[in-house]
Amino acid sequence: MNCVSARGRVTLDMMPFMSVEGTVVLLDMYDEHSNPETGFINFGIAENCLCEEIICKKVQGSLAFNPGTQYYYAYGGKLNFRNALSDFLSERLAKGKPLDPEKIVVTSGVGAAIDLIAHMFADSGDCFLTLTPFYSAIEMDVGLRSGVKVYHIHRPDHDTNTLKAFSFDEELLERGYQEALDKGHNVKGIFVINPGNPTGKLLNRDELVIASKFAQRHDIHVIFDEIYALSVFGDDAEFTSALSIPELLNNDKSHVLWGFSKDFGISGVRCGVVYTNSAEYLEGTSKLTYFGGVPSVIQDALARVISDKDWLDNVYFPTNYRRLKESHSYMEKRLTSLGITCHAAKSGFFIYANLSKYMKEQTEAEEMKLYNELKAAKLYMIPGSALRGRDYGWFRITFTSQKNTVELGLQRLEGVLKKRS
Amino acid sequence: MNCVSARGRVTLDMMPFMSVEGTVVLLDMYDEHSNPETGFINFGIAENCLCEEIICKKVQGSLAFNPGTQYYYAYGGKLNFRNALSDFLSERLAKGKPLDPEKIVVTSGVGAAIDLIAHMFADSGDCFLTLTPFYSAIEMDVGLRSGVKVYHIHRPDHDTNTLKAFSFDEELLERGYQEALDKGHNVKGIFVINPGNPTGKLLNRDELVIASKFAQRHDIHVIFDEIYALSVFGDDAEFTSALSIPELLNNDKSHVLWGFSKDFGISGVRCGVVYTNSAEYLEGTSKLTYFGGVPSVIQDALARVISDKDWLDNVYFPTNYRRLKESHSYMEKRLTSLGITCHAAKSGFFIYANLSKYMKEQTEAEEMKLYNELKAAKLYMIPGSALRGRDYGWFRITFTSQKNTVELGLQRLEGVLKKRS
Repeated sequence: MNCVSARGRVTLDMMPFMSVEGTVVLLDMYDEHSNPETGFINFGIAENCLCEEIICKKVQGSLAFNPGTQYYYAYGGKLNFRNALSDFLSERLAKGKPLDPEKIVVTSGVGAAIDLIAHMFADSGDCFLTLTPFYSAIEMDVGLRSGVKVYHIHRPDHDTNTLKAFSFDEELLERGYQEALDKGHNVKGIFVINPGNPTGKLLNRDELVIASKFAQRHDIHVIFDEIYALSVFGDDAEFTSALSIPELLNNDKSHVLWGFSKDFGISGVRCGVVYTNSAEYLEGTSKLTYFGGVPSVIQDALARVISDKDWLDNVYFPTNYRRLKESHSYMEKRLTSLGITCHAAKSGFFIYANLSKYMKEQTEAEEMKLYNELKAAKLYMIPGSALRGRDYGWFRITFTSQKNTVELGLQRLEGVLKKRS
Repeated sequence: MNCVSARGRVTLDMMPFMSVEGTVVLLDMYDEHSNPETGFINFGIAENCLCEEIICKKVQGSLAFNPGTQYYYAYGGKLNFRNALSDFLSERLAKGKPLDPEKIVVTSGVGAAIDLIAHMFADSGDCFLTLTPFYSAIEMDVGLRSGVKVYHIHRPDHDTNTLKAFSFDEELLERGYQEALDKGHNVKGIFVINPGNPTGKLLNRDELVIASKFAQRHDIHVIFDEIYALSVFGDDAEFTSALSIPELLNNDKSHVLWGFSKDFGISGVRCGVVYTNSAEYLEGTSKLTYFGGVPSVIQDALARVISDKDWLDNVYFPTNYRRLKESHSYMEKRLTSLGITCHAAKSGFFIYANLSKYMKEQTEAEEMKLYNELKAAKLYMIPGSALRGRDYGWFRITFTSQKNTVELGLQRLEGVLKKRS
C-alpha cells in the first residue's frame, strides 16, 4: 500500500546517475584477492587512496573516546574544533586572513551542508544555477530532501580541448540567469565549484569577484564549493580561495564549503565545513545538525589532525602532493599515448579526458554506448553527459586508486578502445 | 536582510523548551573544579553517567580507523553492523524471535530516525498523535525540518499518583483520534513510547496490540519508541518490546526505534536504529542518510561492542543495572523524605515526581514559578508542563549523574523547597 508523503515520493523518484551506478560499483568492487576477475575497477568515485597508511595511522591515533566525547555536545561544531578549523583554513585557504570560528558550521559531509542550504534558503521548486559540466550530485544534494532544482548554464559552442573553455564572464552568468527567469524559475543562488569538478579548472580572483557581484546584483546566494582546495598539486597551479578575499564574504549570501572527504581522503568520517556570514544559516543549522551531527569523538580527532602542523607540513601534504602528481602524470601519459586529449589541470582526483575519437559521432547515445562497453569490461568512469556536459565523448577518470588498480583499469580501457579503433 | 525560505523560517521559529533551556544549562554546567558554585546541576538532560569508565574503555578499544572505514560506505547501515544489530536486538528485545538485517536502518540518533519518518510519511502540516505527558522533543523531531505537528491526547482527569494512570485503552485512542480529526488535522500516525518518558511506565502486550490495531484500523503509522528498552532495572519490572510480537510488525506502517544514546549512555556517537517493514522507508533512508550517516568507523566500533556477549552479560549490563537501581533507590528515598510522591517505575533515567505540595496551587504558572526558582538555584529539572502534562507540579528528575552531583542537586532542591514549606 502506498503510504508515502508527496515529498517522500520526490526522494524515492530521484535516481541520479552517479548514485545509482556508484552503488552498483561499490557492491562489486575489484579486490585482488576476493574479487579479481569480475570486480569493478573504480575510475569513477572520487576517492584518494594514495596516502592510506599515513592518514589511517594519524586518525586512529587521534581518536579518544572519553567522558568528553561520550555525551551530548554541539552537533554543528564544538568550540575546540571550530577554533582549530578557523586556524587551519585561515592559514591554508585564506592566505593568512583571519577567520571567525563563530561563522563555522560542521556538517555530516559537504552534501549535507548543501542540503541545509537548500532547506534554509529555498523552497521546493526553487532553483540554483551552475555552469556545466559540473559535479552533478549537487542536484541530489539540493533535490533529494528539499525538492530544489538546479538550472544548468551551458557555455556556447567552444573548443573544450583547452581549459580556458571553462572560464566564465559576467555575460555568461547574466545570460544564464535571464534564461532561467524566462523559463519561470525562481533563482535562489549559484554554485561556483573551485577547483572545478570534473575539469580541475582553477578560477582566478577576477572570476570569483564576477560571481560574487553577479549574485549581489540579483540578491541571490553564491556558494563557493572548495572541497578540493588542498588537492592542488601542480608546481605552477595557483588556487584562490574565496576565503582569501574578504570583500566576497561580508554579506549574508556568500557561503564557502570545504570538507575532509577529499583533501584528507577520509569520506568515511562524513565531515563538511561551512564558512558563512548568515546568522540564519548558523542558527538554523545549530538546530538541524541534531539530525546529522559529526560525532563528538570525530570532531575532537579531526581537531587534533589539523592542529598538528608538523605532521601536515612535513608528512601528510608533501607526500600527498607528490603522490597525486605522480599518479596524475602516469595516467595522463598513458591516456595521451592512446591519442586521448587530457585537460592540463593539476588539481583534484581526476582527468577530464576526451575519448570522442573512439566514438562514431559526438552524441549522448554514442557516449553512453561507450560507457556501457566500459562498464561491461568492469571499468567504471563517469561520462560527461552525467555531469551535464554537452561536448559528448568526455569522461571523468579518477587517477587516485592504488597503483596496481590504476594499471589494471588502464588495461581494461585499452582493451575496450582497441576494439573500437 | 531576510533571505530565509518559508520552511527555513519554521526551523528558526521553533524554540522548544527542552532545547532552549538545555542549551543554557549545557553552556554552564557544574564542574567540581572549574565551575563549582554557579554551574548547573543537571537533573534534566537524560544522560546516564553511571558507567563512564566501563563504556569509554570498551568503545575506545573498538575504534579502528583503517582502509575499511576510511571511505564511502553504506551510510544507513553497513552489513556487518546490521547483522550485529539484528542478533543483538533479537536476543535482548525480541525474546529470541529472529529479526531481518534487511529491515534495519541506522540513523544519526533516534531524533533523526523520527525526522526521516516525518519526511517520508507526512507532509508539512500533517500530524502524529501522542499520549501525554511525553518526551516532547518529538515535536521538534517531526517539526523542525518537516513542519509536521504533534496532537496531544490528554487523559481525562485521574489520579496521576499511581502509574496505572498512564495506561491506555482503545477508547482513549479513538477519542483522541476523533478529536484530532474534528480539529481538522490530517493524522498520519501515533507514537507509543515504551518504557514511558517521563513516567517510566512499562506497557504490556495488550496495550501494544491495542495501539497496533488502532493504527491499522485507521491506516496510520505506529511508531514504537523503545530507546530505554535495556534500561529497565527493577527485579519485577517486565519490559515487552514490539519486536517480540511478530504480528505487530507484519505490515508497512509499524516501526520500532532503539538507539545507543540511552542504553549504552553514549549520546555523543549519534546512533539510532529503526526496524521496519516499509520498503519506502528503507529505500528513502538509504538515500537520505547521505546527509547524516553514522560514520563508518563508529558503525564498526558499535558492531564490536554489541557482539561481545561476554562483556555485555558479565560486565556492562549487570553493572549498569546495579548502578541504576542504587541511584534510583537513593534518589527516591531522598525525595520521599521530602514528602514528594514518586512513581514506582523501575526504568529509564528519571523519576517523575509530584512536587505540588510545595506549590500554592496546581497551575502551570505556579509550576513555572517553582521551575524558575530551581533554575535560579542552578538546578535544572524538567517541569511536567514542558512534557505536555496537565497535572501541574510534576517534574522529571534525572538520577543518573555521578553520586556527588546527585547529592549536591538534592541539597539545592531541599534548599528551594524549604523556603516554600
